[in-house]
Amino acid sequence: MPISQTRFDLQPDEMPTHWYNILSDLPFELPPDLPPQSHGAAATTVRPQVPLELIRQSIARRAEIAIPEEIQAIYRQWRPTPLHRALHLEAALQTPAQIYFKYEGNNSSGSHKLNTAMAQAYYYKRAGVKRLTTGTGAGQWGSALAMACHAFGLACKVYMVGISYRQKPYRKVVMQMYGATVVPSPSPETRAGAQFLIQDPDGRGNLALAITEALEEALADDDSRFCIGSGESYSILHQTIIGLEARKQLAQAGVYPDLVIGSLGAGSNFGGIAFAFLRDRLRGESQVRCLSVEPSACPKLTRGAYRYDHTDSSGVTPLQKMYTLGQSFATPDIHAGGLRYHASSKLISALYHQRLIEAVAYQQPEVFKSGVLFAQAEGIVPAPESAHAVHGAVVEALKAREAGTRPVILFCLSGHGYFDMAAYEAYLAGDLRDVVIDDEQIAASLALLPDVE
Amino acid sequence: MPISQTRFDLQPDEMPTHWYNILSDLPFELPPDLPPQSHGAAATTVRPQVPLELIRQSIARRAEIAIPEEIQAIYRQWRPTPLHRALHLEAALQTPAQIYFKYEGNNSSGSHKLNTAMAQAYYYKRAGVKRLTTGTGAGQWGSALAMACHAFGLACKVYMVGISYRQKPYRKVVMQMYGATVVPSPSPETRAGAQFLIQDPDGRGNLALAITEALEEALADDDSRFCIGSGESYSILHQTIIGLEARKQLAQAGVYPDLVIGSLGAGSNFGGIAFAFLRDRLRGESQVRCLSVEPSACPKLTRGAYRYDHTDSSGVTPLQKMYTLGQSFATPDIHAGGLRYHASSKLISALYHQRLIEAVAYQQPEVFKSGVLFAQAEGIVPAPESAHAVHGAVVEALKAREAGTRPVILFCLSGHGYFDMAAYEAYLAGDLRDVVIDDEQIAASLALLPDVE
Repeated sequence: MPISQTRFDLQPDEMPTHWYNILSDLPFELPPDLPPQSHGAAATTVRPQVPLELIRQSIARRAEIAIPEEIQAIYRQWRPTPLHRALHLEAALQTPAQIYFKYEGNNSSGSHKLNTAMAQAYYYKRAGVKRLTTGTGAGQWGSALAMACHAFGLACKVYMVGISYRQKPYRKVVMQMYGATVVPSPSPETRAGAQFLIQDPDGRGNLALAITEALEEALADDDSRFCIGSGESYSILHQTIIGLEARKQLAQAGVYPDLVIGSLGAGSNFGGIAFAFLRDRLRGESQVRCLSVEPSACPKLTRGAYRYDHTDSSGVTPLQKMYTLGQSFATPDIHAGGLRYHASSKLISALYHQRLIEAVAYQQPEVFKSGVLFAQAEGIVPAPESAHAVHGAVVEALKAREAGTRPVILFCLSGHGYFDMAAYEAYLAGDLRDVVIDDEQIAASLALLPDVE
Repeated sequence: MPISQTRFDLQPDEMPTHWYNILSDLPFELPPDLPPQSHGAAATTVRPQVPLELIRQSIARRAEIAIPEEIQAIYRQWRPTPLHRALHLEAALQTPAQIYFKYEGNNSSGSHKLNTAMAQAYYYKRAGVKRLTTGTGAGQWGSALAMACHAFGLACKVYMVGISYRQKPYRKVVMQMYGATVVPSPSPETRAGAQFLIQDPDGRGNLALAITEALEEALADDDSRFCIGSGESYSILHQTIIGLEARKQLAQAGVYPDLVIGSLGAGSNFGGIAFAFLRDRLRGESQVRCLSVEPSACPKLTRGAYRYDHTDSSGVTPLQKMYTLGQSFATPDIHAGGLRYHASSKLISALYHQRLIEAVAYQQPEVFKSGVLFAQAEGIVPAPESAHAVHGAVVEALKAREAGTRPVILFCLSGHGYFDMAAYEAYLAGDLRDVVIDDEQIAASLALLPDVE
């Protein structure tokens, strides 16, 4: 009897030994970063936060960047990750499309974030740093960094967005289990946090502020450095191992994708799954479509402006040209905390501006509906962030049914939702609603951006 | 550079096609079940709850029982599961022992329970049943059965032990996501539950009562059947796929275990990992030791009596000869809800009585300490139940360090602890204490057992 193979595994020695650097294939130049407007001197104090090797990785022009053996060794605790054919989901949708998903949730951090956390901790450790600070939204990044700091013998301090700190208390316990100190942001521990608490006594917070607090603390201590989980070109670079593995696994399955889908926060998950395929397109070797899915409540690519903006909320970081809603944009409290960031990274933004990738935005209730459908069909509860990619795949698979086409769809299931059951509970109880963002709200936030081109 | 391989995967076509039936190799006869004492007529109404095929599996004498293709197909959603070498844990313990673990947590039910849930749902469906009822402790079994019922188109009603229902609310959401109806036990919906609520107005409950309620409901409805996740010989049979896979994977690694360790609730997890190896010992082909780990708070093998007892609390089920604390034993509220069952299955009990397997009991704080150590070293948070097996492996690895021996240790990491972070939070806060069970308490409970031999 023929076996319908639904999982495609790589052997440990088949794990990629290099990350893919898309800068080598870009047919355009990235707009340069600009010094911050408000704090002229700060630019020079922020820059040295990042180890030279990570800066080199952000500007290198060679296509392949070797993964140090120490990082490969630690990657092998959970990599290569599995690629699944979603046969049961296909059946549930009665679609002729083939749906594959790459699953990044099989580690204690619960998501893909560990790929760059381990790499960054390694490089910071080599640079002589003793302690890392960071900001985290839903907590996947904080969990990943806590694990990585533990693995490489660094101390770790995490500012966690207040609303997530309370909605997802158990991610905090994971961080603490790995020895990290976790505080809700806004916190009274920093100048920025204390100031914010005056306007936001409930302490809901947002990711830009958490980042600002972590940065403020790191700047005040010689042994500490601030680091960040997404958005920077090197963090996307580290995630390309996802797509590189998936490429080999799809080859095992004898297929090549017509469409690659990832959810979009700042961009490291999306870039992680898409760039290994976008490379072929940039080289004229395929027509693959790469589709990012963002929440309607935080529609930076689909409704933002391509403008210079800060990556934090204090204005001390360099200005980067990004699709942004403005760093003062108040994202509604959706459950996909990892997608609430106000902008998309400069690399993803430039690719979108050049029409090399596509974007679409969906509402929470439809996203959760697909998340539940996926869990029922495939036996894994997706993180709310990942459920955006699931929904993107579901929509495309239904389009294929209508059109009678048979596309091969690949998406990244970037994490599990076991810490997000309160969100599913709210969905099942019918408590989630569509969120309407007014054009005026976006315009008002964009109006506060620095006036530079 | 040589790659230190830490994961051993089987290809889909290497998944075992048969379960292993240890009855074929037993050098003794199992003591027969006896009709219940209190409800003479009930025995005949309980027996037909179980489909003929499952009854056959409980008494068959052939060593290999074919896994139906439909069950193999659904198993392939998450099987074969990975086997890992715990190199980082070995390093942390500075032990010369080799430690391997089989990981069963990579599915939405979060544990090994799905192996028998899928099989049972398949056989009940084939028997024409429309709806299954069950009792669950920590919720792993309820989640697994909810998923299985969804997969095979059956309705599902779960009575969840009250204390777990409140301590682990998110497992309830998983069950609901798969369409199950979940009620806390004791519930006013059954006669047994209503009666129990009088003595236990706080509704803490216990597994024996949850089972009783589920059974009472099933007996009152022709289209419903009661089913159970552990303890019955067929449920242990279905779990043997764990050990059969691990055997192949260890062969890949070029080793054979000296010691196989599993945590013990009623016995399906322990039997699942151990029987494929115990077979070799029963056949005189190896000296492998099989070690079960139970909580000190519920020490049925280490401190119970080998007596006839009921598997539920109402006394309607047949009497089985088991190591038991007595079905009225009030297990303290430990976090390992899946190990709070008052007895060990008749099969495991008989093997223990014949000194073919070993047993040890550990306290919560030491178990959680090893759980945290494991999470830090290997990047997976163990379920509190599974942390018992982790601790067993840690103790044995430390003994090997003392003795200067190099045993190969295999244990089953039966599930993840992402729904148990409140328990880890309590441990990290120093709130867990050793539990002392008086001999008098056990004696008092045993004194209530029916006086039969």
